[in-house]
Amino acid sequence: MSTYLGLDFGGTKLAAGIADGHGRLLAIERCPTDAAAGPDGAISAMRRLVQSFPRSLPEPVAVGISFGGPVDLACRRTLLSHHGPGWEDFPLVERVAEVWRRPVAMDNDANAAALGEFRFGAGRGYRNVLYVTVSTGIGAGVILDGKLYRGSRGLSGEVGHTIVLPDGPLCPCGKRGCVEAIASGPSIARAYAERAGLPPAAITAESVFRRAEQGDEMARDVLRWAIGLLGIGLANAINLLDPDVVVVGGGVSRAGDALFSPLREAVRANSAPSPPGAVPIVPAVLGDAVGVLGAVALVCDQSRDSAPG
Amino acid sequence: MSTYLGLDFGGTKLAAGIADGHGRLLAIERCPTDAAAGPDGAISAMRRLVQSFPRSLPEPVAVGISFGGPVDLACRRTLLSHHGPGWEDFPLVERVAEVWRRPVAMDNDANAAALGEFRFGAGRGYRNVLYVTVSTGIGAGVILDGKLYRGSRGLSGEVGHTIVLPDGPLCPCGKRGCVEAIASGPSIARAYAERAGLPPAAITAESVFRRAEQGDEMARDVLRWAIGLLGIGLANAINLLDPDVVVVGGGVSRAGDALFSPLREAVRANSAPSPPGAVPIVPAVLGDAVGVLGAVALVCDQSRDSAPG
Repeated sequence: MSTYLGLDFGGTKLAAGIADGHGRLLAIERCPTDAAAGPDGAISAMRRLVQSFPRSLPEPVAVGISFGGPVDLACRRTLLSHHGPGWEDFPLVERVAEVWRRPVAMDNDANAAALGEFRFGAGRGYRNVLYVTVSTGIGAGVILDGKLYRGSRGLSGEVGHTIVLPDGPLCPCGKRGCVEAIASGPSIARAYAERAGLPPAAITAESVFRRAEQGDEMARDVLRWAIGLLGIGLANAINLLDPDVVVVGGGVSRAGDALFSPLREAVRANSAPSPPGAVPIVPAVLGDAVGVLGAVALVCDQSRDSAPG
Repeated sequence: MSTYLGLDFGGTKLAAGIADGHGRLLAIERCPTDAAAGPDGAISAMRRLVQSFPRSLPEPVAVGISFGGPVDLACRRTLLSHHGPGWEDFPLVERVAEVWRRPVAMDNDANAAALGEFRFGAGRGYRNVLYVTVSTGIGAGVILDGKLYRGSRGLSGEVGHTIVLPDGPLCPCGKRGCVEAIASGPSIARAYAERAGLPPAAITAESVFRRAEQGDEMARDVLRWAIGLLGIGLANAINLLDPDVVVVGGGVSRAGDALFSPLREAVRANSAPSPPGAVPIVPAVLGDAVGVLGAVALVCDQSRDSAPG
C-alpha cells in the first residue's frame, strides 16, 4: 500500500498526516503555528510532527502541501501568508523536497480542500464540484470535468470577494458588500455585536447561532440576512458554473441545519430558472483533516498525471 | 478546402452562411423569423437561404446550428424557444441532418457565439474566455482550457441571472436585481423611460446612449448605474473563473467606448485584489455573423473530436 504525507500549513495551526491513496488517514498530528518563526520554523515544526508518528507506518512515497495563502501559478512558491512574515516568494516545494526527498505537490488551502472533498469526501463520484469554505474568510475551489480548475492566473474560485450588496459592509479588500464581509464567521459576529451594542470581542459566529437557537430575535435577523446573502453568492456561482453539487465546509458549516436549511432555501430562491432538480448543497465531511487530506489528494493527482520524479 | 454550413436560428431572424475552417465567411443570407411557422417553417426558410447561395461555392462537409433558446444536454433537441411555439423537445439536429445529409452539431446561441469568438474572433489565442452578450437579454458562454464548458446540466454561463442588487428591478425570471434586469438593452431603455416619464416604447438603449453623448444628465445617470452594476456582474464572474479575457458582444456593445470605458473601470473597481494586470474586457469582432460563425465553430470542433459520421 502506497501512503502519502500531507502537510497543512495553516495560519493558526500546522497539521501533518499520513494517508493512503483512498484518503484513509493512518496518522495525524497538529501544533499551533508560530507566525514569528516564519517558513523555516514551520518546516521544523512539521518535521517534529512527522517524527512523532508511530514508527510502524509505511514510508510515504510523496508529499502534498496545503498552504494557507496564495501560491504561484506553477504551485512551487508561496506568494504571501496573511499570518506572518517571510512567506513572500518562498520556494516551499523545493524546501520540502529537500527535507523529505520525495515528489512534492502544493496548492492553496481552498484548492487543496476542494480536491480533498472531491476525491475522498462529499464530492466523491461527481464531475463538477464547487467547494466553499465559510470560516474566518470565505474561499472556494472549483473542480470542473474532474480536475481542479485554477484559472488563468491561479485566482479562480474567489466566491468570498464576489459582491452581492453594492452598498453593504466594507470588506478588508476595500470593496463593499463582498460575501466574505457579510457571511464569514467574524462578519456574522460583528453584525450581531453592532446591532446589540456589544464589544465585538464578546461575540463569535458560534454564539450568534446559539443565541438564535435560544430564541434571540436579533440573532435570528442577523443570520437570516447573512445566510440569505451567502445564498445569493452561491446561487450566482451556480448560475455560472452549473456544478453537480456544492460542498460547504469551514468552521461556520459546523452550525449544521441552522446554516444549511436557510442556505438551501436562499440558493433555490435566487437561482436561475432551470429544469427540475436543484443543485444539492451538502456539508463537507473531512472536518479538521481536510487540509491534510486535500494535500494528499493533490499529490495523488500529480502522481497519476506524471511519473514521480 | 473544406467548408461548413452555419445555421443561426434566432428569435427575430434566421441566417445561413458558408465558411471555411478558419472562419472565413464565403456567403451569408438572412431573413426574418416567422415565429408562427414553427420549426418546419424555419427549416424551409433555411433551405431557401442556402439555395440562394452562389452555385460556385464548394459543398459544405458538415452543418452547425446556433439555436436561440435552450437545447438538451446532448445538444440534439431544442427544449424551447422564447419566440414561438413548436420548439419544445424538437429533434432539430436529426431534422437538419435529414435535409442536408451531413454531420450536424448544435448548441444554444450564447455557447455558439462564445466558441465562434474563441476560434475566429476576439478570443483567439487565449485559453480561458468568458463571452458575454449584452442584447435583448444578457447571456454568456464559457471557454475553459480551450473547450466549451457547458456545466452539469448544460446551464453554465447564466451571467444575466446573477444577482447584483437584491432589492433591484424585477426580472422576468421572477427574481430581483439580476444583471439582465438592469443592463440589457430593454432594461436600460425602461430605466430611462421611467425616470423621464416617457412611454417605454419611445426609448431604446441606443437612444439613451445618444442622449448621454448629447449631454442629457438623466441618460448619463442611467448608464452609470446600469454599466456600474454590469461591471459588478462581470467582476463577480471574473473572480470565480479567472479568465484570460472577457469578450463582450451583442447589440448594446455597439455603443463602443461609451460602454467599454466605464465598464472596464467598474470591473477594475469591483474585482478581487489580484496581481498586476487586469483581465482585458474587449469587444466582440464577429458582429452580425457571430451566430453563423459560432455554428461553424461548433461543427469544426465536433469534426476535430470525432470522425464525421
